[in-house]
Amino acid sequence: MSSQTFELLILGSSSASPTSERNPSAQLLNIAERYFLIDCGEATQIQLRRFKAKFQAIDHIFISHLHGDHFFGLPGLLSSMHLLGRKQEITVYCPKELKDVMDLMNKVSDTHFNFTVNWVFTNNDGLNLIFEDDKVEVYSFPLKHRIFCTGFLFKEKPLPRKIDKYKLDKYKVSTADILQLKNGNDVVNKEGVIIKNKQVTIDPREPKSYAYASDTIYFPAIIDHVKGVDLLYHESTFLNDKKERAEKTYHSTAEQAAQIAKAANVKQLLLGHFSARYGDLEQFIAEAQPFFDNCLLATDGKRITI
Amino acid sequence: MSSQTFELLILGSSSASPTSERNPSAQLLNIAERYFLIDCGEATQIQLRRFKAKFQAIDHIFISHLHGDHFFGLPGLLSSMHLLGRKQEITVYCPKELKDVMDLMNKVSDTHFNFTVNWVFTNNDGLNLIFEDDKVEVYSFPLKHRIFCTGFLFKEKPLPRKIDKYKLDKYKVSTADILQLKNGNDVVNKEGVIIKNKQVTIDPREPKSYAYASDTIYFPAIIDHVKGVDLLYHESTFLNDKKERAEKTYHSTAEQAAQIAKAANVKQLLLGHFSARYGDLEQFIAEAQPFFDNCLLATDGKRITI
Repeated sequence: MSSQTFELLILGSSSASPTSERNPSAQLLNIAERYFLIDCGEATQIQLRRFKAKFQAIDHIFISHLHGDHFFGLPGLLSSMHLLGRKQEITVYCPKELKDVMDLMNKVSDTHFNFTVNWVFTNNDGLNLIFEDDKVEVYSFPLKHRIFCTGFLFKEKPLPRKIDKYKLDKYKVSTADILQLKNGNDVVNKEGVIIKNKQVTIDPREPKSYAYASDTIYFPAIIDHVKGVDLLYHESTFLNDKKERAEKTYHSTAEQAAQIAKAANVKQLLLGHFSARYGDLEQFIAEAQPFFDNCLLATDGKRITI
Repeated sequence: MSSQTFELLILGSSSASPTSERNPSAQLLNIAERYFLIDCGEATQIQLRRFKAKFQAIDHIFISHLHGDHFFGLPGLLSSMHLLGRKQEITVYCPKELKDVMDLMNKVSDTHFNFTVNWVFTNNDGLNLIFEDDKVEVYSFPLKHRIFCTGFLFKEKPLPRKIDKYKLDKYKVSTADILQLKNGNDVVNKEGVIIKNKQVTIDPREPKSYAYASDTIYFPAIIDHVKGVDLLYHESTFLNDKKERAEKTYHSTAEQAAQIAKAANVKQLLLGHFSARYGDLEQFIAEAQPFFDNCLLATDGKRITI
């Protein structure tokens, strides 16, 4: 059992315009108490409050593309962070034009944040490592939409090996060597004998991963990038009844999302970015399940432990 | 009795950051079925839906100034109007830099509205007529804030004279002459006799007026512009306990708002733009009433018939 958190909170699940039930795209991913905000549609700051999420704990914001339903909430969120006293820097991973937008917003309102905004610009060159610390890696990868758009892949790094405390005693290993053991190294015990790591540790659970793919036309090129992830969010703006419209607007249907999930052999599929025309979302599950069984719906406020 | 509507709907009453109870500034004013949106903080489109207001009936949007809590909802509102099929032109009355913001937003998102946006830029030169039709006049007037900011004055034009139907018969006036009578003219009756307008008409009610003053430091120069209005909205971001902070940030206290209302001899005062620090808003009424009795609170969703 590992206690490292890997939890997703859906803040918005609507495409294009908000509805009375669904806000535009935004998700909050917590991996080991790192809070990653993924997309930031209008009123994301209001949704964060509504679902009692840690507002100022967000240090990294990922914006897939510059259609309004994915970033119109960013100026307000950053402004509120500023007004509420934030000093800690924040990093935004996004298409480069977003910086121009924020610069102009701040200029016309004569606003000067009391914290630094770092900008990391996404690009179209395959899978790209854009963030890394001791526990997490984040990659961007290209999607295919009407304008430049990337998905994001969040991966835990391999977890430390787990100590078998009973065996520590048995093999007379000093507790000072625990960090060495957690890192997978062999150690010398109190009697000068080399103790192989595997003699006193057990395998940790596998690292978990989450891939976010919104917005995109059916685009099999992403399969390689999201292969085997624990959870794949794939947009399904439409059902098959609007397959032509999906193609024309560079969106996907629930069936197409399921086909990608199946081909990538992911563990679970999360459908979202629903067109406002659909009231009953169970239709999306019904359409996807014949192709990929383990799927669920992104609805505002839903929490998913991965 | 006239049935011409003059109704205000509060969409947001918070200053700076939204709270769980209060959205940032926005109001919808309906005068004779002309829908005027006044300021457009983040999530105004969501508030319009929530309070079942007529979204696409808005043809005129007035933005007081370019602090985010007064305009961050505009890009999303215009985008949704576009996505929901709007063809009818809309006019935005605002500081000129807002057009640059919208142009850049549309450029980065490759968005082309299917309707025309007309821009009328506000200025600092006293009371300025910025809109007029057969029933309504709208003026801007300068406020004093950290950045360029104007208030707005909405006035009904004089209403048509009311016909006394009993006297029409008595004086043998043709019904074909009713429009002439409503406009205040004398007419010649069926027997060739001149009938004075006042013989067959009665006075309509006085034209109503509404003035919007947000955001501003205590600024007696506005008194002349809002003199005698039926309803004055005056910001009261703070109470007197934060009078220094009000001055420093170019905002007003409830007492100062009441002093302006009293000096301008308005009929009713509406307080709003409350700092998030205040939970119990009744304190604002308590502070204002010793100076101006007839005052009320702007709270989200409140409808005020003027």
